[in-house]
Amino acid sequence: MRRAVALAARALGATSPNPVVGCVILGPRGTVLGEGWHRRAGGPHAEVEALAAASAAGHDVRGATAVVTLEPCNHTGRTGPCAQALITAGIGRVVYAVADPTDAATGGAATLAAAGVDTEGGLLAEEAAAGNAAWLTSVLHGRPFVLWKYAATLDGRSAAADGTSRWITSADSRADVHRLRAEADAVVVGSGTLRADDPHLAVRDREGAVQPLRVVIDTHASVTPGARVLDDAAPTLIAVGEHADTTHLPGADVVRLPRAGAGAGHGGLDVHALLGELHARGVRSVLLEGGPALAGSFVAAGAVDRVVGYLAPALLGAGPAALGDAGIGTIPHALRLQVTDVARLGPDLRITAVPTASATAPEEN
Amino acid sequence: MRRAVALAARALGATSPNPVVGCVILGPRGTVLGEGWHRRAGGPHAEVEALAAASAAGHDVRGATAVVTLEPCNHTGRTGPCAQALITAGIGRVVYAVADPTDAATGGAATLAAAGVDTEGGLLAEEAAAGNAAWLTSVLHGRPFVLWKYAATLDGRSAAADGTSRWITSADSRADVHRLRAEADAVVVGSGTLRADDPHLAVRDREGAVQPLRVVIDTHASVTPGARVLDDAAPTLIAVGEHADTTHLPGADVVRLPRAGAGAGHGGLDVHALLGELHARGVRSVLLEGGPALAGSFVAAGAVDRVVGYLAPALLGAGPAALGDAGIGTIPHALRLQVTDVARLGPDLRITAVPTASATAPEEN
Repeated sequence: MRRAVALAARALGATSPNPVVGCVILGPRGTVLGEGWHRRAGGPHAEVEALAAASAAGHDVRGATAVVTLEPCNHTGRTGPCAQALITAGIGRVVYAVADPTDAATGGAATLAAAGVDTEGGLLAEEAAAGNAAWLTSVLHGRPFVLWKYAATLDGRSAAADGTSRWITSADSRADVHRLRAEADAVVVGSGTLRADDPHLAVRDREGAVQPLRVVIDTHASVTPGARVLDDAAPTLIAVGEHADTTHLPGADVVRLPRAGAGAGHGGLDVHALLGELHARGVRSVLLEGGPALAGSFVAAGAVDRVVGYLAPALLGAGPAALGDAGIGTIPHALRLQVTDVARLGPDLRITAVPTASATAPEEN
Repeated sequence: MRRAVALAARALGATSPNPVVGCVILGPRGTVLGEGWHRRAGGPHAEVEALAAASAAGHDVRGATAVVTLEPCNHTGRTGPCAQALITAGIGRVVYAVADPTDAATGGAATLAAAGVDTEGGLLAEEAAAGNAAWLTSVLHGRPFVLWKYAATLDGRSAAADGTSRWITSADSRADVHRLRAEADAVVVGSGTLRADDPHLAVRDREGAVQPLRVVIDTHASVTPGARVLDDAAPTLIAVGEHADTTHLPGADVVRLPRAGAGAGHGGLDVHALLGELHARGVRSVLLEGGPALAGSFVAAGAVDRVVGYLAPALLGAGPAALGDAGIGTIPHALRLQVTDVARLGPDLRITAVPTASATAPEEN
């Protein structure tokens, strides 16, 4: 199963709106007969890929065991139902990690069992669920999974007093950010970051990576046609306020959204309206790249599912903080997280954390 | 030697102005005949303690090996020279880690060798030097070693917007701060922290700990007689400006210091004058407990030798930053550090870092 989880992870960022799935077909003595993973939406599912690989290698899969990270689907979408494919192939046993929570695809385990296949769920479920966090979150909340990434000094500054921010963190950390972008369906920045950094936001140096949708939150449509984010390296969506003048952006993909309500910590656009729009476009995971004001509005909206902080061992003592106003005024209302990973990236630390189970959006406290 | 380094560390915070030293006497087959460490200034040195322990246990130390973290001293201070004590006892071999850099005590190795004792230095020197960092720094720079400790959220806030800071970090982290206090000769806070928190600054819950000198940097002598820091749990020094009115503090230990020069990032007292005063009082290690303005003035003065940050996995988005103005305006002038340790303390992270070898005070850039 651990191998199947690793296979699934290869396609992070490429399968939306589908989940990532990995599958390993094992022979009676535990030998691997075939492996597969779901590579992209519309392409073959992991089970079908693994069966095909076994067949191509000349293996007989009758009576074999299929180990798969997600309950085999039961519905016919762009491809046929995997449960039926496994039954047809004569698979004797299916072990899956996470049950499929969607109305359309659930029931695969029951179909398999009814056909006499020995079926068991729950193996390494937590690990497999973590690998599929984006898709599971989107199914559960009806909005994309949001990872907020920031880079800061040990004293929490994301830029110096003069506005310079290149480079606070090391080349290792910046390369890791390209991995996060490649794994995300969309990358979101605010107009402040756009004006300050003119970022490109496309994925570099990652072979075969699917470029994420670049999303600019630009209430007043202040982006200019020459901005690097508007080049053709990847698609770009510009989210503007309802009354913004966009005549200087002919041909751009523009969406009009309502303004955030009072107390949202930020005078920008409504975060949930934005996430709803992205979800409707098939986006299941969002990498929020800042700056502080935009990040504050996401925290205020209770719409941050994971935090990845790149901390450079440096001190500034002045300059903007990584996180701006999130409507939190006092310690008991702080958004409490749980650290899930700490890694060294060159001289830097990468800290990964998720809101604790009891954490609620500050506005609800 | 590793055992000797561990023995030495037992007395951190208790030996100033002396170093911490540990000593193990080994018999011909490597058996431990006696152990000792320097427990307090004026008390027996580690070598004499170890010889006494061996003698009390009935062991014959003639021809034995003495393993000691610092070159045995050669001078007669409050106690006799250790080199001579080892020779008199008939020790056959001395292995030490770090050479004694002080004019008064150096030469012990030469004395031993001249007496026919097989003498060798440098074993685990780096590890032993790290354990004696405070004393070695004070010998090298003529000022106490300064450890800046801060507690902050992941986004670098040391308090919320309403000024509350209890509790950002966990009980585990706060207990660890008491260890730092117990290991320091002096604990330094500014008047801002004093007004906001009325801290006590004494060491709690650590048996046998020597209470550090509590130092309040209070330019305008704003501390009031009822402040907790003025109780009799530990001695307290109040550092005030040259023209401050201290008539409301009869009997208090007050020192008058010059104001910091322009560009020092803080309108307070001269950091080097303060450290000189503390050094003259025998203080070899200082725990700087903040707040942001005071920490900024120490960073600006190039007077931070180690940083220990307690990072709580929480987000605030508003409130004072852990580090205030340090006269650093742009990224190339950031104080770059090297992370030497990352530990989990309950839910929190403790990050330890030291200025990189190339780091200089910002004012010199």
